[in-house]
Amino acid sequence: MSTEPVHDSRLKALRTLMKAKGLAAVIVPRQDEFQGEYVAPYAERLKWLTGFKGSWGVGIVHRNKAAIFVDGRYTLQVRQQTDTRLFEPHHLMEDPPSAWIARTVKTNEKLGFDPWVTTVAEARRLKAAADAAGAKLVALPRNPVDMVWKDQPARPSEPIEAHDMAHAGLSAAEKLKAIAATLAGQKADAVLLSDPASVCWALNIRGSDVPYTPFPLAYALVHRKGKAELFADGKRLTPAAKEALKAVAQCRAPGDLAERLAALKGKTVALDPNLAPEAARLALLKAGAKVIEAADPCVLPKARKNATEQEGARAAQKRDGVALTRFLNWVSMNGVKGGFTEETAAEKLRQFREQSNLLRGLSFESISASGPNAAIPHYHMSPETARAITPGEIYLIDSGGQYLDGTTDVTRTVMIGTPTDEMRDRFTRVLKGMIGLSVLRFPKGTTGGHIDAIARQALWKAGLDFDHGTGHGVGSYLSVHEGPARISKAGHTPLEPGMILSNEPGYYKQDAFGIRIENLLLVTEATPVEGGDRAMLGFETLTLAPIDRALIDTKLLTREELHWLDQYHARVVREIAPQLDAPTAAWLKEACAPLT
Amino acid sequence: MSTEPVHDSRLKALRTLMKAKGLAAVIVPRQDEFQGEYVAPYAERLKWLTGFKGSWGVGIVHRNKAAIFVDGRYTLQVRQQTDTRLFEPHHLMEDPPSAWIARTVKTNEKLGFDPWVTTVAEARRLKAAADAAGAKLVALPRNPVDMVWKDQPARPSEPIEAHDMAHAGLSAAEKLKAIAATLAGQKADAVLLSDPASVCWALNIRGSDVPYTPFPLAYALVHRKGKAELFADGKRLTPAAKEALKAVAQCRAPGDLAERLAALKGKTVALDPNLAPEAARLALLKAGAKVIEAADPCVLPKARKNATEQEGARAAQKRDGVALTRFLNWVSMNGVKGGFTEETAAEKLRQFREQSNLLRGLSFESISASGPNAAIPHYHMSPETARAITPGEIYLIDSGGQYLDGTTDVTRTVMIGTPTDEMRDRFTRVLKGMIGLSVLRFPKGTTGGHIDAIARQALWKAGLDFDHGTGHGVGSYLSVHEGPARISKAGHTPLEPGMILSNEPGYYKQDAFGIRIENLLLVTEATPVEGGDRAMLGFETLTLAPIDRALIDTKLLTREELHWLDQYHARVVREIAPQLDAPTAAWLKEACAPLT
Repeated sequence: MSTEPVHDSRLKALRTLMKAKGLAAVIVPRQDEFQGEYVAPYAERLKWLTGFKGSWGVGIVHRNKAAIFVDGRYTLQVRQQTDTRLFEPHHLMEDPPSAWIARTVKTNEKLGFDPWVTTVAEARRLKAAADAAGAKLVALPRNPVDMVWKDQPARPSEPIEAHDMAHAGLSAAEKLKAIAATLAGQKADAVLLSDPASVCWALNIRGSDVPYTPFPLAYALVHRKGKAELFADGKRLTPAAKEALKAVAQCRAPGDLAERLAALKGKTVALDPNLAPEAARLALLKAGAKVIEAADPCVLPKARKNATEQEGARAAQKRDGVALTRFLNWVSMNGVKGGFTEETAAEKLRQFREQSNLLRGLSFESISASGPNAAIPHYHMSPETARAITPGEIYLIDSGGQYLDGTTDVTRTVMIGTPTDEMRDRFTRVLKGMIGLSVLRFPKGTTGGHIDAIARQALWKAGLDFDHGTGHGVGSYLSVHEGPARISKAGHTPLEPGMILSNEPGYYKQDAFGIRIENLLLVTEATPVEGGDRAMLGFETLTLAPIDRALIDTKLLTREELHWLDQYHARVVREIAPQLDAPTAAWLKEACAPLT
Repeated sequence: MSTEPVHDSRLKALRTLMKAKGLAAVIVPRQDEFQGEYVAPYAERLKWLTGFKGSWGVGIVHRNKAAIFVDGRYTLQVRQQTDTRLFEPHHLMEDPPSAWIARTVKTNEKLGFDPWVTTVAEARRLKAAADAAGAKLVALPRNPVDMVWKDQPARPSEPIEAHDMAHAGLSAAEKLKAIAATLAGQKADAVLLSDPASVCWALNIRGSDVPYTPFPLAYALVHRKGKAELFADGKRLTPAAKEALKAVAQCRAPGDLAERLAALKGKTVALDPNLAPEAARLALLKAGAKVIEAADPCVLPKARKNATEQEGARAAQKRDGVALTRFLNWVSMNGVKGGFTEETAAEKLRQFREQSNLLRGLSFESISASGPNAAIPHYHMSPETARAITPGEIYLIDSGGQYLDGTTDVTRTVMIGTPTDEMRDRFTRVLKGMIGLSVLRFPKGTTGGHIDAIARQALWKAGLDFDHGTGHGVGSYLSVHEGPARISKAGHTPLEPGMILSNEPGYYKQDAFGIRIENLLLVTEATPVEGGDRAMLGFETLTLAPIDRALIDTKLLTREELHWLDQYHARVVREIAPQLDAPTAAWLKEACAPLT
């Protein structure tokens, strides 16, 4: 438990402000104005207040008690990072904020929230909780933490670059035209794009305001005539971006958004209730605009990669595969000797990726995990936890890169030394699941929820499972976690050609070892089979890197599975080996030798 | 197209009534007051009015036009049975009633409906459609068809029998206590059971008011004190039923329901909006009762068969398997000789079932289909369509029996003569799907929607699929189609131990042949596997009858699939052969000889 007195004094400052404003309680979510996975330092309000560093959480400060709510990933971590005498930790599902509010906030007390960091849907849930307590929910004009955070960092203002046609494949003008057509169908005059990934996709721009995901933190308004307003300081645009945007979008100062929304008086404006800030809805209503709630019109077209983006993905995955193969060779040579750690290994892999000279950054913090650390699916190494890579143990590396032509995400699990029978059994079952999805053909309309079990059945047979989804969508030089499709029990979006999804079943034995094998898949129209009576979809495997044969128990594989693996490995050699030096190429050929 | 002038005159009579009552339009659903699959002759209002004999449909009669809405199963049939000059046929999904109402019914016109044959949820949808048209939705005090149907048959009044403890396993008093506990949790004073299957389950009674499903058409009210009111004429009770019900339920005349609902003034009453009649909700509100909408409290406990019901199911399936085996032997001896038809074959099977002396009736109309007729998944033979069973063709028999200890449902597909390679390929793929589900183990919380793909993947691989769900729940001497769980893309209920579901993948080649293989499965707690880290569920196959080896291409089966089939066949011989005469037993042994 952290006992830094700094959090005590910050909490006191916030309460002093609350008292002055007549607020009995305020909400401090980890989310920022853009609802993304990563936030900039200025928006680390929950961390500043509580010390908690997780990627999701919400604090509620009442005048005489305070609580922090986290999900299952963070129940241990929150107790390590937060002074629990100041903030009671709660499990989001087991004791949700609404229940805490209902029993803590008193009748007629005011519960304040910042409507810029709260979505329309979330504000609705807060309203219901406040109503249940008989309390008043108050949208605050300024974020309460910002008002007491003296040395709050400035908002990021990194350059905004053009994402050129060679990578985007479709011009911003064409994309805005498609959005305008959606607006016409909805009888709407404009749509607020509040997800920076949507703004980037629609306007063919990229940025670097947050780590790992190459976007600027900016909103945009798209109007029915196919023109846009980008709420970002025009000075941030590179000359190429300025030139590219000229015909389709106007830059506005971020602070002008409220005024521009007010100018939509009498108009009908669409926004996505799960992404857009409640503040925008309130501003539109106040201005006399009509608000319609509808899914962000960029989400589906962004997920369906066009031919150029698909070609880019193939090139990026191949380039990334060369780096990963060189790294795996290095691990195979150095692992048993010892002397390197989770951290030095991750750094080594970053160097291999950088040697392509095309890496723009990593797509997420690498999970480099040895032995029991690999049993933590979302393990984040730190100097205190970083273990040495040790003979007799499994080493798991889950990492990805951002390239202009594509975003990668790949996991390989390798044996350092000799595996146990149990390790080989588990690895092979995970592999069976991974192959099962890779070779699957399925009819149109099939969702990720319908096929998730395919990746699990071999584990289920052994009384095992893994407690995460099988796959997530992946962006095109955008977020490595991209909606709306995913392969999990909760995947309700039909898979469509052009979508890129990860295929990453795993197995985790607590305090012992962890296994995950991950390739990216592109959804394709499957080649028709003679005698087939309907069009089918299928997957093209994009990721190219060897799968550790030492961990495979071939007796557990069917002929078809063995055939897939040998074919896959032959393809890895064919596509990767020509780009390697001779010793590495020789190692790869051996690592990919057929099992049949 | 039917041109019987009788429908013309009936439609005229209805319009004359509508005019007299000031109604511009009325709704005539196929459903009765109990929302079941089968309705009694008095309730065949849609058939009487339109000639349409399907099991689902809705007519809407407007003063100057009329329409009938059916689903995909009936788009052809409705044109054969209905005078389309009187009733425009519409596809329920492609042009739904709401759209038709919106463009046909005029502002301020009255749209009448019978709230006894309309659920709360359906009434809500009608209200939205009427609102969209600016029309007024009017709940009618009497069914408009009943008012013009001069020779409407009487309501059925068959005996109501006790379903004794030897088959029910749990007394009505215990079941009512459990329902009372649910009511306490909901802070409700009573619940209206409007589904006769729930009434039967709760009170341990059965009846025969409709074909195939052994229940009386009756509502019940269950009170928080654990006592019930059964709305059925007490004279219908057999002496045993009278005795059994004495301590737990009082009989009321069906016509007393409105009065008994009115007596609930000031009370809180639960009803299931998807099952209960809107009339009951209106009566309760009128009486000053509070209505809460909640799932029927019997649905889940009824679906989870208790140990007695599970034992009963095993006995019933075995008994049924003897009859089916004798029939399949008869088919194998007589099929190639010719001389019997779909109809005579179905009758022959009924006779084999009756020879057990325990058959209470069939559980649905047998689908006995030869050659191209088998390609129609929901084929109903008629004297005009019944084909001869012909060498060189596939014969499909889907049938089931009602026994006091269980309800059966089984499909076998057999070759008359020599199959083509295509037939064997398709049959084997269907079989792979059937086996895939049979051997599946899965964690708690898994729904039918998550595992439906397991039964399809071998067909998908060949560009094929089947356009129906893989499985439905089955009752215990109740409905052969029982909710809430099912194995289909739309299966959202977690599977739980004790549930019985069908496992019936198929393949249909239009105008050529059809294949379906169906076993019933009991959901069980799976025997733990050494090394497994969590409890798993699995399936016990209940159905016992040979699967036609002539249609199997063993090259397409994995070792595990072959092993399952050989083990299954060995079990069929072990359990069925001792109950057969020597020649039939010898045939069965040959039919079940191992393939490996």
